[in-house]
Amino acid sequence: MSSQARAVVAGATGYSGRDLIHLLLQHPQLELVGAFASRGGDTVSLATIHPQLTGQTTLACQPFDEAALAKLTPDVIFLGTPNEFSHEVVPALLETGATVVDLSGAYRLHDAALYPKYYGFEHTRPDLLTKAVYGLTEFARAALRGAKLIANPGCYPTSIQIPVLPLIKEGLVADGQPIICDSKSGVTGAGKSPTSTTHFVEVSESFKAYNVFKHRHTPEIAQGLGVPNDAQAIIFTPHLLPINRGILSTIYLKLKQGVTRHDVLRVWQTTFADAPFVRVFAEAQLPEIKFVANTPYCDIGCVVEEKTGQAIIVGAIDNLLKGAASQALQNANVALGFDEKAGMR
Amino acid sequence: MSSQARAVVAGATGYSGRDLIHLLLQHPQLELVGAFASRGGDTVSLATIHPQLTGQTTLACQPFDEAALAKLTPDVIFLGTPNEFSHEVVPALLETGATVVDLSGAYRLHDAALYPKYYGFEHTRPDLLTKAVYGLTEFARAALRGAKLIANPGCYPTSIQIPVLPLIKEGLVADGQPIICDSKSGVTGAGKSPTSTTHFVEVSESFKAYNVFKHRHTPEIAQGLGVPNDAQAIIFTPHLLPINRGILSTIYLKLKQGVTRHDVLRVWQTTFADAPFVRVFAEAQLPEIKFVANTPYCDIGCVVEEKTGQAIIVGAIDNLLKGAASQALQNANVALGFDEKAGMR
Amino acid sequence: MSSQARAVVAGATGYSGRDLIHLLLQHPQLELVGAFASRGGDTVSLATIHPQLTGQTTLACQPFDEAALAKLTPDVIFLGTPNEFSHEVVPALLETGATVVDLSGAYRLHDAALYPKYYGFEHTRPDLLTKAVYGLTEFARAALRGAKLIANPGCYPTSIQIPVLPLIKEGLVADGQPIICDSKSGVTGAGKSPTSTTHFVEVSESFKAYNVFKHRHTPEIAQGLGVPNDAQAIIFTPHLLPINRGILSTIYLKLKQGVTRHDVLRVWQTTFADAPFVRVFAEAQLPEIKFVANTPYCDIGCVVEEKTGQAIIVGAIDNLLKGAASQALQNANVALGFDEKAGMR
Amino acid sequence: MSSQARAVVAGATGYSGRDLIHLLLQHPQLELVGAFASRGGDTVSLATIHPQLTGQTTLACQPFDEAALAKLTPDVIFLGTPNEFSHEVVPALLETGATVVDLSGAYRLHDAALYPKYYGFEHTRPDLLTKAVYGLTEFARAALRGAKLIANPGCYPTSIQIPVLPLIKEGLVADGQPIICDSKSGVTGAGKSPTSTTHFVEVSESFKAYNVFKHRHTPEIAQGLGVPNDAQAIIFTPHLLPINRGILSTIYLKLKQGVTRHDVLRVWQTTFADAPFVRVFAEAQLPEIKFVANTPYCDIGCVVEEKTGQAIIVGAIDNLLKGAASQALQNANVALGFDEKAGMR
Repeated sequence: MSSQARAVVAGATGYSGRDLIHLLLQHPQLELVGAFASRGGDTVSLATIHPQLTGQTTLACQPFDEAALAKLTPDVIFLGTPNEFSHEVVPALLETGATVVDLSGAYRLHDAALYPKYYGFEHTRPDLLTKAVYGLTEFARAALRGAKLIANPGCYPTSIQIPVLPLIKEGLVADGQPIICDSKSGVTGAGKSPTSTTHFVEVSESFKAYNVFKHRHTPEIAQGLGVPNDAQAIIFTPHLLPINRGILSTIYLKLKQGVTRHDVLRVWQTTFADAPFVRVFAEAQLPEIKFVANTPYCDIGCVVEEKTGQAIIVGAIDNLLKGAASQALQNANVALGFDEKAGMR
Repeated sequence: MSSQARAVVAGATGYSGRDLIHLLLQHPQLELVGAFASRGGDTVSLATIHPQLTGQTTLACQPFDEAALAKLTPDVIFLGTPNEFSHEVVPALLETGATVVDLSGAYRLHDAALYPKYYGFEHTRPDLLTKAVYGLTEFARAALRGAKLIANPGCYPTSIQIPVLPLIKEGLVADGQPIICDSKSGVTGAGKSPTSTTHFVEVSESFKAYNVFKHRHTPEIAQGLGVPNDAQAIIFTPHLLPINRGILSTIYLKLKQGVTRHDVLRVWQTTFADAPFVRVFAEAQLPEIKFVANTPYCDIGCVVEEKTGQAIIVGAIDNLLKGAASQALQNANVALGFDEKAGMR
Repeated sequence: MSSQARAVVAGATGYSGRDLIHLLLQHPQLELVGAFASRGGDTVSLATIHPQLTGQTTLACQPFDEAALAKLTPDVIFLGTPNEFSHEVVPALLETGATVVDLSGAYRLHDAALYPKYYGFEHTRPDLLTKAVYGLTEFARAALRGAKLIANPGCYPTSIQIPVLPLIKEGLVADGQPIICDSKSGVTGAGKSPTSTTHFVEVSESFKAYNVFKHRHTPEIAQGLGVPNDAQAIIFTPHLLPINRGILSTIYLKLKQGVTRHDVLRVWQTTFADAPFVRVFAEAQLPEIKFVANTPYCDIGCVVEEKTGQAIIVGAIDNLLKGAASQALQNANVALGFDEKAGMR
Repeated sequence: MSSQARAVVAGATGYSGRDLIHLLLQHPQLELVGAFASRGGDTVSLATIHPQLTGQTTLACQPFDEAALAKLTPDVIFLGTPNEFSHEVVPALLETGATVVDLSGAYRLHDAALYPKYYGFEHTRPDLLTKAVYGLTEFARAALRGAKLIANPGCYPTSIQIPVLPLIKEGLVADGQPIICDSKSGVTGAGKSPTSTTHFVEVSESFKAYNVFKHRHTPEIAQGLGVPNDAQAIIFTPHLLPINRGILSTIYLKLKQGVTRHDVLRVWQTTFADAPFVRVFAEAQLPEIKFVANTPYCDIGCVVEEKTGQAIIVGAIDNLLKGAASQALQNANVALGFDEKAGMR
């Protein structure tokens, strides 16, 4: 791989797109050569859409156009676009030869049959579902190298799989009790479109559960953990926090008899010894959202009631960074052969 | 006036409508007999629209329908409807013989010529502009008694006129320097429709000025204070606070030579001696939004730099209550001959 | 019981005390005759301590003094005081003959042996622990009538016991899986003392779990539900929400085979048929904190995954009202023979 | 100057100290070699004090000790310490030969006589007040080069002086009307100590003015603008916003007859042509706090009512960055001969 590469962002008007652009603008090896909206409309400067970017780029955001995008000869294309949009454009974008990192859910589930129920559309490319690399970076580095289609994980699944997957892999989790994931997310997770759900007055000074037993991240979590997608194995309840960014998942699971907090920490420390963006909280302090907001980290910690083996695990991320933009960049870095940390502080 | 009366709320789906209904449900003499939306659609229970009201009323909200409304034979009709809607329906509603309290700006300005510029429509009933009573309760009690059309004041103008008007009336304010009103409002002031302006992520952890030199409350404030509607006399800058409810106005004005803080307090205490909902802060403590949120009060306080006569006046209200619903009820109470405080704690 | 009674509040400087005073000031039958701090210091007007109360009362808050309190001949004494303070003063206050409603945890646990571990002090009056009525009003009305010592429930336990207790009593809950209570509270729950935990910057835009497996409300919940105080029966995890007031508990429990959502709703509707302050959410809408904030209600709702019998139950209250002040008043109303709703809107 | 230098931060436990450390950890030429508290106590790892820094540094924060600090042979010493502490230690620290950047107010005012009134202590080193360079970077570059004592500007004064100073220098401002600065700040500006002023419940959902006519930044603003420190020339009213970080100042001033918005923009664009961290908003969009939060920028914009020459100017910064840590680093960069932007994104 050459030491420089060209990047394009489609879906540049949303929050993930904005944060990705912000990261790319200071990446030492990736040059942002184009930005596209996920629909038609006028060409508008990125600084007009995201005044935060004023003075940092003179690039404009164009209406989406495959031919115009291909002409930019990108090495990597990031899609911060809606699920159905990504589903539709990925095949053509792969033909450009670029690596496609899709931040939507369109290519995350291996089983095409789940799409109508959870995403509301028939999946037409089950072949690509097989080929796509699920980019939970810390567990996928080998597959990511040179990958052409990367399905970037969902925000909630990232906060849950990173702490839980090593415990399952190492055989620490007992059978017979569902893994219960009580997750809480800031409002950027609901996207930039104004709806009654994202209205300040409806969110501020309040808190609620939503999509109980129905959220589309449930099958993704089950798939990622390798457990059945049913309430006997996994229960996932998302809630809406009155904050801008951040997810904290409180996870209840039963450890096998005799497994201690020390065992959990040891497995984590071994698994993530070379992971620059996973921080194991080994002391009394548990992860909190403010420690990860505006950072590319996933913080993990746990408390174990050792008589019963009941564990309470806490995973925290910034939903727009490790849950979207920075994990996408981390994946692109690995795919293109750059330092995994390039572009991130 | 009999000791009981019938009330109807049109525009029951918005925040002011909701708070008005909440007040009416515990009013000892006003019975809420009907609720209407400001447009078509289905009839839906109020508790479905505003789950806060669950268990407090079984009333439904109907699509707006003049005939259906008239059949309820209301004594008082509250309009929490958009400006143009109020402009249009008020004449017909007056024919029912009920007292109409309009919470919109449609009948607030005496000069019809201001409507195209500030409200975007031609006013067709300048005759009613003359007849409407501007319901800044504390200054309008005589006119309110038996009034048939009451223009309920805007939220910002209420927070400014209550402290400033007595000082102008009593001749304490010097000429030659504009009265500068730097006002800050919570998001309920922007209404319940989801827009990019009311999106949680755009408001939270931020703050901005908006509609600088252009807000439609400017001519209302000038009219209320009896000063010219130009920047030499009055400057009004609204800002958006990341809170749900409340307005605080910081007002800069120059007092005549020799006028002291004590003089200001004395004028206020005299003016508001019998005003149950104006609280004069006479000690060091200045008004803050948290003291008035969820209350029908207007709190006022001041600091005077006595060498120069420069005064900084602070007025604070709950924009949905003294700035809308509770002042509307206060006005209806006076108009119908009830205790001004009825229905309010 | 006469139709009027005299009330005193000790611990008037805190948030619960303030809200209780606010309720008492509009109670038709209870007259607030005195207010005390929980420590020494000067006598200060309540409006100075809580500027929200300006214009509503001229009463002052005195340093705590048993003799001065007794001289006021109260019929009911509310204690919004710290645990150890309540523990110490309750015996003497009972000698006045008044009904004592203690909002602290000092008399909630039947088992004195739990106090050193959970409250940090030896309980010296196990006899009173036996006599105290645990005032979860909806389940204690008979015992409350004429009661002399009422232990007002904790905020978290209220939000959990109200929805769960009827299901246990009616035998709907399966054995073999802990009842997991993932609870989230606003910051007023942490009290009015400034600490690093309540600092705006540490709370805002963040979220955290705290006191995992160690919170003193755990044994109270176990006692209230009649289950063992261990992690095999009950798991309770409190979290801190960046809001002022409100608790939402998401509760995971397994129903017996064949039990449906309809069964749960039916049990709730029967249990709470005459409960003015419990609202059963029987449609798709689940409780949210904004529906109960500033109200005396407990809202409850559920979703049941019927294949597995896994239930997710949501209970929501205002922690300062149904979780403290309004439940205390509800209990006093029942104890003194008043309408349970008196003083509450 | 060599291409590498050694930096020490004293006052590392506060918010400014934390943000400064965060910047230094990614500075290409400055190495953070030591961190000190502003008082005694234990040596604790920075990651324990600021868990945000977990995984980014293994450095510990020591109790303040001049000798230990000197042994680290720093080229630059940043003081994020209290005013009186800085006042006291600066003379000794200057003897190390390092450049001292003091973020407190101890060396900002040229007139020692102002210290007792505004800072509560007698200034013992008026000679150093004369020598200290007031580090409003954009106006002080020549003096900063090689400077040994830099008084880093206050947060509020930065947000006001950057937009206003060029207009005064270029003679655009009319006499006869005070410059009114209505400023609003997030809570990090109040420091990390828990007080009733910083308690979440006292700040959230509220807003207030404070220190009216008395804030210590008033003489600093007057000095910076070159106008008399009295209410006829300058009025400054600080307010507390319920947000973590950011200041927005709304500034009212009168332009000389005939001066237009275009003239204001032209002066700004000329003045800041080479300023990497000042962004002139020349279109309709005005600065908002969210555009500058977590950035080193000062955004400035204006609206001019051209008939009267009344201007409303908006300046926005992140109070912890351009208002403290990033301006300190910008100043150190200039003093040490590095790129002004080094270490900042």
